[in-house]
Amino acid sequence: MPVKQDKSEQKAITPRSKDYSEWYQDVVDQAEMAEHSPVRGCMVIKPYGYAIWELMQKDLDARFKTKGVQNAYFPLFIPESFLKREEQHVEGFAPEVAVVTHAGGAKLDEPLVVRPTSETIMYDVFSRWIHSYRDLPLLINQWANIVRWEMRTRLFLRTTEFLWQEGHTVHQTEDEAEDFTKQMLDVYRQFAEEVMGIPVIPGQKTESEKFAGAVRTYCIEAMMGDGKALQSGTSHMLGQNFAKAFNVKFLDADGKEKFAWQTSWGVSTRLIGGLIMAHGDDKGLVLPPKLAPYQVVIIPIGVSPEEIEASQSKAQEIADQLEGEGVRVKIDGRDMRPGPKFFEWEKKGVPVRIEIGPKDLANNSVMTVRRDTSAKQVLTEEGLIDAIKEILDQIQTNLYQKALNFRIEHTLEVEDYKKFKKEVEGNFVLSHWCGSAECEAKVKEETRATIRCIPFGQAKTPGKCLYCGQKSDTVVIFAKAY
Amino acid sequence: MPVKQDKSEQKAITPRSKDYSEWYQDVVDQAEMAEHSPVRGCMVIKPYGYAIWELMQKDLDARFKTKGVQNAYFPLFIPESFLKREEQHVEGFAPEVAVVTHAGGAKLDEPLVVRPTSETIMYDVFSRWIHSYRDLPLLINQWANIVRWEMRTRLFLRTTEFLWQEGHTVHQTEDEAEDFTKQMLDVYRQFAEEVMGIPVIPGQKTESEKFAGAVRTYCIEAMMGDGKALQSGTSHMLGQNFAKAFNVKFLDADGKEKFAWQTSWGVSTRLIGGLIMAHGDDKGLVLPPKLAPYQVVIIPIGVSPEEIEASQSKAQEIADQLEGEGVRVKIDGRDMRPGPKFFEWEKKGVPVRIEIGPKDLANNSVMTVRRDTSAKQVLTEEGLIDAIKEILDQIQTNLYQKALNFRIEHTLEVEDYKKFKKEVEGNFVLSHWCGSAECEAKVKEETRATIRCIPFGQAKTPGKCLYCGQKSDTVVIFAKAY
Repeated sequence: MPVKQDKSEQKAITPRSKDYSEWYQDVVDQAEMAEHSPVRGCMVIKPYGYAIWELMQKDLDARFKTKGVQNAYFPLFIPESFLKREEQHVEGFAPEVAVVTHAGGAKLDEPLVVRPTSETIMYDVFSRWIHSYRDLPLLINQWANIVRWEMRTRLFLRTTEFLWQEGHTVHQTEDEAEDFTKQMLDVYRQFAEEVMGIPVIPGQKTESEKFAGAVRTYCIEAMMGDGKALQSGTSHMLGQNFAKAFNVKFLDADGKEKFAWQTSWGVSTRLIGGLIMAHGDDKGLVLPPKLAPYQVVIIPIGVSPEEIEASQSKAQEIADQLEGEGVRVKIDGRDMRPGPKFFEWEKKGVPVRIEIGPKDLANNSVMTVRRDTSAKQVLTEEGLIDAIKEILDQIQTNLYQKALNFRIEHTLEVEDYKKFKKEVEGNFVLSHWCGSAECEAKVKEETRATIRCIPFGQAKTPGKCLYCGQKSDTVVIFAKAY
Repeated sequence: MPVKQDKSEQKAITPRSKDYSEWYQDVVDQAEMAEHSPVRGCMVIKPYGYAIWELMQKDLDARFKTKGVQNAYFPLFIPESFLKREEQHVEGFAPEVAVVTHAGGAKLDEPLVVRPTSETIMYDVFSRWIHSYRDLPLLINQWANIVRWEMRTRLFLRTTEFLWQEGHTVHQTEDEAEDFTKQMLDVYRQFAEEVMGIPVIPGQKTESEKFAGAVRTYCIEAMMGDGKALQSGTSHMLGQNFAKAFNVKFLDADGKEKFAWQTSWGVSTRLIGGLIMAHGDDKGLVLPPKLAPYQVVIIPIGVSPEEIEASQSKAQEIADQLEGEGVRVKIDGRDMRPGPKFFEWEKKGVPVRIEIGPKDLANNSVMTVRRDTSAKQVLTEEGLIDAIKEILDQIQTNLYQKALNFRIEHTLEVEDYKKFKKEVEGNFVLSHWCGSAECEAKVKEETRATIRCIPFGQAKTPGKCLYCGQKSDTVVIFAKAY
């Protein structure tokens, strides 16, 4: 979408310290990422927001393919009866589905549910695809839109319709399925850390927080700029629950017919919300270079037509060189003052700004400004391209490190429940938990904090349950969450 | 999906001459491209079919972006009232929509239509995005799923849900919009010819065949292997029809507020059906290299473990070299006889097969087989990679030329209606048409042939209308169509 000229100047972004929620909404709005649509709870993803999603898709898709996963596409509609076949699954999803009751001018015999997730429709089909152990593993992924009727929506974070990928795999053995579930969680962890620049804590969900129909749910949890958690990817070990409900069987090498072992895993456009909240500042969005639609914006500056032409021409020359090296570049040659341009591209989180004016041209140099640190640096034309690439790498690393430091500063161990109630506002709190759903529910009821996950790889240390004081050897992460 | 071992051998594809429709279904089935789903009229696009769609998307998307088009995403659901705002549009689409009446456990105040196309939901949003002529042109594309309730469905060709792209643009002037409409049609023409290897006839739809709500619809029409037509892409000049219905206005440079001029254009997964029918033969699918998920399949052959290892190792070496040159390669090292493998990859239309056995290894050569001509050729290892790339280019060109020759052979000019009735079975028929909707409707009623398009660039030649005999200076293409 063309940017409205000079208007952007007038809008201010609410400071995070004043109202974090307003700040978020302002950034989404002013970085032109998305907006609410006329349809309740549904969003319009604007070109700039969608370009970020495309970059996420491209990177994730390549990672899935190296695991041998193939893309396919299954129907948007699911017969209502399918959803009911797995008992826990229907309990979890039935309250939030949209239902098509009429089509082609007539009432349907059986209502169709708009997919809230595709386990049921896919596994019915898988049951006919799979005959013997030679057909396994079956590794399928789908990029699709999903509908879950939400009461309170926030752009990207929670919308009635969203975009996602959902992987669904079928395996011969329990071990293989368990292993694949964890492999895919690790793909998400790597993507979050290496590409999004967001450190995450991988772990297991509690029974009450797991996916409806799964045996176990693994997740990665990220800390946002207000100390709250965002579940940023989940991978479910489905065991044989759905296999039994949908008759996904195979003839094993030993000649016996067996139920298969399944997994599913997904991430969605909610990651864009996470990206905003993990790195954004009071000037707006801050993008890690790997997910920036434009990694570099070049602003040619000049007053006289000759000056403008000279700086435009130099801008084009540098842009061509950067693009030749695979850098995504935007030249902003609009006929308007530089100030509002700086302001606008800062709001949009472009990692590096290059300014080229008459003085720079005279000195064979350019001015560069980093979005993450606001650091300005004059760079000579010689070696410029390599220097810019180096800066982009530094920004990618710095954003991760900054987010990690922030999380470390906002993570603490707490034993005392009174202290917990205070500290869980804006922090990740590590506490012992006895494992009972009742204690978990009470903490949630009294503090609105939930167990985000039981982190992997912890040594069993003796302690007392935060809530009931009973013996516990498990530490969990409590936090408020999006 | 893993291929079931040795089973493929037993299935035969119905010859085209026996039953073209059965042949089509067999190819879709046996090349593992798609299947019917448990949901009426919806299809499951299997990995092999979806991989072709991904290649199409990638190529088209790059072409759109060179035109300055940006991707975005709009809601799946459209308030019923929106659809009704443009009179012709609702007439065209209302009978085939699926309607969500319940969601989140309650009846909705206003039913939501599942998008049959997105003009209405997008233009309502555009009306708020556009303020002045500086915001124009607005060039948006969306990759999405679409639902149109179809009574008779055929995989890829006509399904209740399908995948597509829909471009929607807004312009300052009528001329600019008209020009862009034609530019996008030309993008489709180039894609069809250069990538799909299918010659197409660009032209204009008649009033009765145009898009519901458009001023004019342009299209490209392709001939399938049975002489029938497939509309393979449309580009609509919407004029100000929707702008007036959705209040898409802008302040022009002259200070006056004006309604904008709009276009929309799309192609869908139906193109995969066209690909099958334009090139397929009695052995199955024949893919143009540019859209082949695997351009080369290598079959290592051997009896003893040593032979197998040696041919596998050579296969890997050649595959690595080809992949280094950007060629998509599959090594089929499954433990089964070569015959069924040949048969299977022929069915899947892989352009080039390379066989490597003990004799080939001894001679430093390989056997290559072209899918399009069945020509076998022994190639020496020296210069092999270039030779394979050359063959792939030849296949791409040959498929286009073959399809063009076929169309030329099956296109004729007819003046006499009795002769027309006979010739229109399996041919494109060029005939004069007086321009009346009545004559067009009568011909359709009596022969089931429709006017596919009024081809561009024809010299006005005097003649007589095929049906009524009145004077006419316009030649149109009649054909039966999918």
